[in-house]
Amino acid sequence: MHSFKELSEKFEQQFSKRQFPDQPSNLYDPAQYILGIGGKRVRPVLCLLGNELFDEVHQDAYHAANAVELFHNFTLIHDDIMDKAPLRRGMPTVHTKYNDSAAILAGDVMLIHSYEYLNKINSKIRTKIVQVFNKAAREVCEGQQLDMDMEQKQPEQVDFTDYVNMIALKTSVLLAASLQMGGIIGGGSEGNQKHLYEFGKHVGIAFQIQDDYLDAFGDPEKFGKKQGGDILINKKTFLLLKALELCTPAQRKHLHGLMDTNPDNKVEEVLQVFRDCRVDEWAEKEKELFSMKAFEHLDSIAVLSSRKQSLRELADFLLTRQH
Amino acid sequence: MHSFKELSEKFEQQFSKRQFPDQPSNLYDPAQYILGIGGKRVRPVLCLLGNELFDEVHQDAYHAANAVELFHNFTLIHDDIMDKAPLRRGMPTVHTKYNDSAAILAGDVMLIHSYEYLNKINSKIRTKIVQVFNKAAREVCEGQQLDMDMEQKQPEQVDFTDYVNMIALKTSVLLAASLQMGGIIGGGSEGNQKHLYEFGKHVGIAFQIQDDYLDAFGDPEKFGKKQGGDILINKKTFLLLKALELCTPAQRKHLHGLMDTNPDNKVEEVLQVFRDCRVDEWAEKEKELFSMKAFEHLDSIAVLSSRKQSLRELADFLLTRQH
Repeated sequence: MHSFKELSEKFEQQFSKRQFPDQPSNLYDPAQYILGIGGKRVRPVLCLLGNELFDEVHQDAYHAANAVELFHNFTLIHDDIMDKAPLRRGMPTVHTKYNDSAAILAGDVMLIHSYEYLNKINSKIRTKIVQVFNKAAREVCEGQQLDMDMEQKQPEQVDFTDYVNMIALKTSVLLAASLQMGGIIGGGSEGNQKHLYEFGKHVGIAFQIQDDYLDAFGDPEKFGKKQGGDILINKKTFLLLKALELCTPAQRKHLHGLMDTNPDNKVEEVLQVFRDCRVDEWAEKEKELFSMKAFEHLDSIAVLSSRKQSLRELADFLLTRQH
Repeated sequence: MHSFKELSEKFEQQFSKRQFPDQPSNLYDPAQYILGIGGKRVRPVLCLLGNELFDEVHQDAYHAANAVELFHNFTLIHDDIMDKAPLRRGMPTVHTKYNDSAAILAGDVMLIHSYEYLNKINSKIRTKIVQVFNKAAREVCEGQQLDMDMEQKQPEQVDFTDYVNMIALKTSVLLAASLQMGGIIGGGSEGNQKHLYEFGKHVGIAFQIQDDYLDAFGDPEKFGKKQGGDILINKKTFLLLKALELCTPAQRKHLHGLMDTNPDNKVEEVLQVFRDCRVDEWAEKEKELFSMKAFEHLDSIAVLSSRKQSLRELADFLLTRQH
């Protein structure tokens, strides 16, 4: 059994070699560039951990892990174009460093390349692996579209359940699918795969709630981001949507005034409303709820508890981080 | 044995049903839209014809054909964004009718969907099918990038061999791969697959030379396009590149003057230079050369000549069209 850190190093060792041909350089350099600017490689390592839950890590798990990481980076490139984001991991985004066309095409070729890795997997399990991968891939696209659809709406027009669904599609299903693909490769039963998937999905949602919470209430020195970044741009977060649901008409009016006029003390004023309608407490409880469900699913997986240690540690790390 | 027209109808019958879920409509409607505005479906039918060259058309050939047609339409959507093209098949392009983000994402989901079809193919031949598909898919991306790279260059800076290579990647390899995938499904030998691939590749290049020729010298009433459309926008075509290679220094200077100043009689003046340096005759010969090679490869396929009838007719139709 390996820790997250150990598997992370094993993954990086084989992934960090150049993934693409040299030419045409205007196609492949942008693709290689985004792979080179880091990232925590959570998804591919989840795939390896999902495998090791049931059996020794198989070469197929590396193929699946590579596919997942390529897919994830493809979505980052295309999402950054759509969101007109200038920076990613503190570095210029692909479309900023190169141009939109290069970024579109580099993303495309990375997606194709991910299927090249999947095509190396033992044919006995490949059909199922590709089904799980494709389902998640489609859902990530759906999540991105739903996110863009919601951006066009006023916060009150966004149904809270729809928002949770969007977040799940955009951020959680790929974590879940990575675990499940590992589980399939490790020989886990259908039932165990299902629990593994749900574990990943619930961890992902809990993580997103925590991320929203830390942006608002976290210690900026530990969190590494400016406090209230989401508030400044009126981003629809778990906190804002829930606040608008829980607050009084007077508080709602005040919130809208702050969002419309952007006063200097906007962040502290919005945070005060959040506290007044106890959205901070709600978020902590909600995160706990999703975490608890996640761990229930992990507990339900029918393997020795000791085999679950690395996944438990990883989830604990992800869900208690203050930075 | 079926004709192109018969297989085309069979293909359309199963392909014309809605390919995507209804929701999120902003994701899937753009994808469905481009499938609905037509196209000749040459690539998928080549896949069916490649199959029927060796055996009865198998359901797997429809899966591969659907994948190829989805892939082709995905490239059209993304290429149109990069080329800022307003129209496609006389209709608004996807990014014009919707927006760039919707077009990027619709293309992405179509590419994913194409692998869903490939994943239904008999696992005994699927590895090879996906390899052929992926190689062509990567090459189409490479061709598009090389095309964009060449656009940044002066015509004289473009090496003619590089140009032929770019055209082959951008337009021919998918035709070739479609035929080969059909050949694999039909049970054709490696050698026969190779000839089938080369047949498709050479037909594609001959077709492109003819397309460039007709744009310049074709009867606009039959061709359906304004004569000299390529000349008006200084597009790098087989004709322009070869003319610059064959012409005298004085003719080159004249050509550059016309390209720089865009006079009213630009088209007829450029055509006169083309005729003076016999680029029209060269193009006809070059097209003949590639056609001949194509048919040599078709002849070399070790099946009864009668089985090749539909492919021969299709190539004849594509390469003698005046419209």
